[in-house]
Amino acid sequence: MYLATIRLGSTTTAVKRIDNDGTQALLALEYPDLGALLADPDGLATAAAATTGTTYAIDTADFAPPVLDPDKVVCVAHNYGDHIKRLGLNLPQHPRLSTKFSSALIGPNDPIVKPADAHALDCAVELTIIIGKSVRHADDDEAAAAIAGFTVMNDVTDRSLEFQAEEWGLGNIWDRSTPMGPYLVTPDELPGGVAPRTTLSTTIDGTVVQSGDTADLHFDPVHVVRRVSRFMALEPGDVIATGSPSSPAHDHGEDAHLNPGQKIVAAIDGIGACHNTVIAAR
Amino acid sequence: MYLATIRLGSTTTAVKRIDNDGTQALLALEYPDLGALLADPDGLATAAAATTGTTYAIDTADFAPPVLDPDKVVCVAHNYGDHIKRLGLNLPQHPRLSTKFSSALIGPNDPIVKPADAHALDCAVELTIIIGKSVRHADDDEAAAAIAGFTVMNDVTDRSLEFQAEEWGLGNIWDRSTPMGPYLVTPDELPGGVAPRTTLSTTIDGTVVQSGDTADLHFDPVHVVRRVSRFMALEPGDVIATGSPSSPAHDHGEDAHLNPGQKIVAAIDGIGACHNTVIAAR
Repeated sequence: MYLATIRLGSTTTAVKRIDNDGTQALLALEYPDLGALLADPDGLATAAAATTGTTYAIDTADFAPPVLDPDKVVCVAHNYGDHIKRLGLNLPQHPRLSTKFSSALIGPNDPIVKPADAHALDCAVELTIIIGKSVRHADDDEAAAAIAGFTVMNDVTDRSLEFQAEEWGLGNIWDRSTPMGPYLVTPDELPGGVAPRTTLSTTIDGTVVQSGDTADLHFDPVHVVRRVSRFMALEPGDVIATGSPSSPAHDHGEDAHLNPGQKIVAAIDGIGACHNTVIAAR
Repeated sequence: MYLATIRLGSTTTAVKRIDNDGTQALLALEYPDLGALLADPDGLATAAAATTGTTYAIDTADFAPPVLDPDKVVCVAHNYGDHIKRLGLNLPQHPRLSTKFSSALIGPNDPIVKPADAHALDCAVELTIIIGKSVRHADDDEAAAAIAGFTVMNDVTDRSLEFQAEEWGLGNIWDRSTPMGPYLVTPDELPGGVAPRTTLSTTIDGTVVQSGDTADLHFDPVHVVRRVSRFMALEPGDVIATGSPSSPAHDHGEDAHLNPGQKIVAAIDGIGACHNTVIAAR
């Protein structure tokens, strides 16, 4: 299944992508967002069974983040072998983790708000886990079962804060800076299932600035879920971004990538793409 | 005012500390916790006006964290001059920030759950801001007005994760590791108001391991709120811990402080104290 959350004026609804005689559309489900759907133990089965209801065109749909307000957003750093090698680091023993608040998240087509004091805004396409079951101290089987599916995050980060000011906690946490979506894709749709075999890329105004392959992931999604669950209970709707392939700015400390007016596309084959324009904040 | 949240079986209530003919007690307020009270623009005025209702004895009250489920918990590192000097660091230009999820918080007298793989658990008493008004891009006056009051946090951190594994994101984020409370103390109760002049200390089994004076704070609470609000909107109930004075383990990388069975008291004069026993998790 390809599930999403779309905005309808001041409300939202969870939807499932369906095929109407060769034309794809979005079928409304009885949940305000995928967070509510996943919080219902029968939510995914209900979505799978749904066949009739209001439909919406994909082209004109206003996609929200799949989960509107996750309690936890965790991000893995340094998880692609090529990226680790280019940074001159040893392979880490455990995933290196940071966090975001949900106030950082925006929809997959919303503008990225560049703060006035972000001097080196960089983008980072990440295969992103959405949790479907409560899990704590998971083993591999429990971790795999806790993965509802995958989406795309563009983990926009200010490298100037991260590197120069050593404010690593702040580099990727601004309000309204992090596109996520459009779809939560269940593992059965993906080659590799809970260890999806796919490729990732980011373009800025059509120029590829980042590309990678999940075959290069150092810690796979099951490992990441298992590790994070040692520290905290993961709950339905929680989000874990699994890290980003190499990017020029991250590797070489080059000048900022992202400037107002630029169009950024962060895409994962078979999962989806975030299309965002950068705008300036005060 | 001294406000708190106490547990009553499976529910909670906000309370105000009152003086009943020389005996202090807790007067129930019409809010389930201080998060709900602060979310009501009239909440603090309502609390101030309250004179009658159910009362509870302080000695037997079961204190919850003052705000049960804050959207944001932000922590400042390296904010006491003496601590910065002992670490051999330059004075930072801006507060260095990290974050917690609310699942890390426990009540001021709850057990601290020491994870099985935390090898150097350290404590850190911190003057902690609780936000009372929505604020973004605050100036000094707006930042001061956004401070509902102060409480005590013991920002328990695993230094082995922080230093050895460089998993700074994880060192202080475990579920149920961070005592906070018991009281939200409004600035009018404190010498210095929104820049409280007070002293802090931590003891382990009665031995002082940490002591400090807010006169040594490099960035005062108003500066911290102003800075954090550049990155994110702060909302009523959000929490910002302003940093910790020096501690032996943090300064010298000594062996773990905290072990199961130890009793930790993190206290701030005029504000309150967290009394917690360390217990082992699996």
